[in-house]
Amino acid sequence: MSDLHPVAPRGFATSEFEQRTEAAQKIMARLGLDAMLLTTEPEVRYFTGFDTIFWLSPTRPWFVIIPAKGAPIAVIPEIGGPSMALTWVSDIRTWLAPQPEDDGISLLSETLREVMPQGGVLGLPMGHETHIRMPGADLQKLRAGLQDITLADATEVVRSLRMVKSEAEIAKIARMCSIASAAFEDLPKHIKAGDTERQAFAKFKIDLLQKGADDVPYLVGSSGPGGFEDVINRPSDRVIAEGDMLLLDTGSLYDGYSCDFDRNFAFGHASDAAKSAYDLAWRATEAGLKAARPGITTTDLWGVMAQVLEEGGCSGHQIGRMGHGLGMQVTEWPSLTPGDKTLIEAGMVLTLEPGLAFGDGKMMLHEENIVIREDGAELLTRRTARELPIIS
Amino acid sequence: MSDLHPVAPRGFATSEFEQRTEAAQKIMARLGLDAMLLTTEPEVRYFTGFDTIFWLSPTRPWFVIIPAKGAPIAVIPEIGGPSMALTWVSDIRTWLAPQPEDDGISLLSETLREVMPQGGVLGLPMGHETHIRMPGADLQKLRAGLQDITLADATEVVRSLRMVKSEAEIAKIARMCSIASAAFEDLPKHIKAGDTERQAFAKFKIDLLQKGADDVPYLVGSSGPGGFEDVINRPSDRVIAEGDMLLLDTGSLYDGYSCDFDRNFAFGHASDAAKSAYDLAWRATEAGLKAARPGITTTDLWGVMAQVLEEGGCSGHQIGRMGHGLGMQVTEWPSLTPGDKTLIEAGMVLTLEPGLAFGDGKMMLHEENIVIREDGAELLTRRTARELPIIS
Repeated sequence: MSDLHPVAPRGFATSEFEQRTEAAQKIMARLGLDAMLLTTEPEVRYFTGFDTIFWLSPTRPWFVIIPAKGAPIAVIPEIGGPSMALTWVSDIRTWLAPQPEDDGISLLSETLREVMPQGGVLGLPMGHETHIRMPGADLQKLRAGLQDITLADATEVVRSLRMVKSEAEIAKIARMCSIASAAFEDLPKHIKAGDTERQAFAKFKIDLLQKGADDVPYLVGSSGPGGFEDVINRPSDRVIAEGDMLLLDTGSLYDGYSCDFDRNFAFGHASDAAKSAYDLAWRATEAGLKAARPGITTTDLWGVMAQVLEEGGCSGHQIGRMGHGLGMQVTEWPSLTPGDKTLIEAGMVLTLEPGLAFGDGKMMLHEENIVIREDGAELLTRRTARELPIIS
Repeated sequence: MSDLHPVAPRGFATSEFEQRTEAAQKIMARLGLDAMLLTTEPEVRYFTGFDTIFWLSPTRPWFVIIPAKGAPIAVIPEIGGPSMALTWVSDIRTWLAPQPEDDGISLLSETLREVMPQGGVLGLPMGHETHIRMPGADLQKLRAGLQDITLADATEVVRSLRMVKSEAEIAKIARMCSIASAAFEDLPKHIKAGDTERQAFAKFKIDLLQKGADDVPYLVGSSGPGGFEDVINRPSDRVIAEGDMLLLDTGSLYDGYSCDFDRNFAFGHASDAAKSAYDLAWRATEAGLKAARPGITTTDLWGVMAQVLEEGGCSGHQIGRMGHGLGMQVTEWPSLTPGDKTLIEAGMVLTLEPGLAFGDGKMMLHEENIVIREDGAELLTRRTARELPIIS
């Protein structure tokens, strides 16, 4: 593998998992939680290092308990035992799943009773950007069997920890951003008018893999004459033609950490309206890059970009926000919105994503990835071209 | 795109979505459900055709309601409006997400009141292999605001429909199985001892994309001297050496439908133990292929393969089943287990996945994909080699 891109060792030191767990336990104590139950991939991976795409299979639930003190306890299907044993977690309890009539619920209940012998409050992430990954009926069964244990929302624990990245996490995101920046810069060499969207996207995906991305789980975009109208589409068999605009937006992974940014291209020529929409989005991003620093809020940062768009005569887009957190997932807390008001801290990795509507229902969307440092924003992506790139 | 592989047109006719919806409504009526609420990607896609990888972002919930009569109603974030408008669904209600204080819950509640003006029973998949993809606290809020509506498990509706595939669904899976079969057959040309697992897996993934897979979301495997001990790992930087065994297992996608099968390779040479484990797994699969037909149960089919393994002196593996359904997801209902007992019907697409332990904690796992026809199993994958392939 080339070393064109910033170095990022794979995995994490055990001390990092210990620190994450201890930091969670401090917040849990403050919130009055006697233990925390995790059921989703990023949370389980964050505290244990357990890294498998087996989560794509909906068949089996996976549970990790963070007790008030000590290391996490894994309560998982036996098929995951060998992989979990490679992590720092030593208390691993397994059952032979799938077993619909009791898919780990008895084992989980016993373990929770052991961890919380006096009963108490069990934290479970139930807030924004979370869900509970287990059958709803099994959660009811679990609750019915643990009458002296009440549930409380633990979103704040995982949200506050995961929002602020360690240097090891930042290094992985930085490497992925560098790889994807290089692939975007090389894209005009690979694609041409006459390609279908699907062909163009496949070339980009293959180049990302060849440049060192582990995976390209997220790749969306659109093309259309003079601009595009949708930004979350999969590629279609539409043939890209002279005069088209093309957007590609990727969340690719390096060692389990994601980039999330896009690039815009025109084929042959572009309208003045498209060029000036590009310029306006570029300037809004630039304002965001200059403003981003510890001590302001996500809403302040949203406002800085919104003001540039407004002064440019645009009312923004219908995506609902102008950026978000980034890390193990392609989008994470917080959101850059008028109402979010999260205090920005050093170590946060954010996207800046100003967009606008122009012409007859066309959209323009820019996106860059940054890490917040004490003195301001450090760009992780290579800044998009100052003027709309035209592929001829 | 080459046409080496069976033809499978993209998308579905509107009539197919109408049939799915009407079939669901018949089962809903039988179960006494006045409407059904869907929150997860495969269910939403199954009834609407809405196909986006935006689901990877945990930020926004997406809701689809199947009323007792008529077409589905989408209650979704505004960013998804244009994509949903491309489907057959015409009743699309949007809100500007993310909006944590009310992320679609008021809009969903209003819509449910309109669909169920007298209150009643709302179906929600809460059983095995399902989860509810929305914040737990939002579900509580929804329930609290709809006192005259009770929830009931609707797993049976989606399970019974999705288990039996249409010819259009089977064609997509068949094409994907053909593409992946070709990529597995060509793999010995691309990989060699001296590659890291990561390099070997990347070559395979790139070849899958070049041969026409839309995406390779699921690719796991393992290597090790004389055999491997884990079957759900991501590739590592381990260097593959002469005398190693290598397993690759992929769930790749064509037009939103997955294959799920694996292949085993040895490098340079293989032990007699590995060869005879391969032979035993091959014969167990063969017995499954001959036995699979409408009218027997998943447990019967499990038993046929288990018997071959047992007669060969093996007690099976710790994966918990010897096959499962396959379709929009890499694993779906039903499971080939001693307890599943699902009646096998024509149109079901299944994996046959017998495995065993051999030697000192090594595993051998075979997998083929079949569709059940009136007169037996039709193989969708190209049968693995009769003897363990050795890459020299």
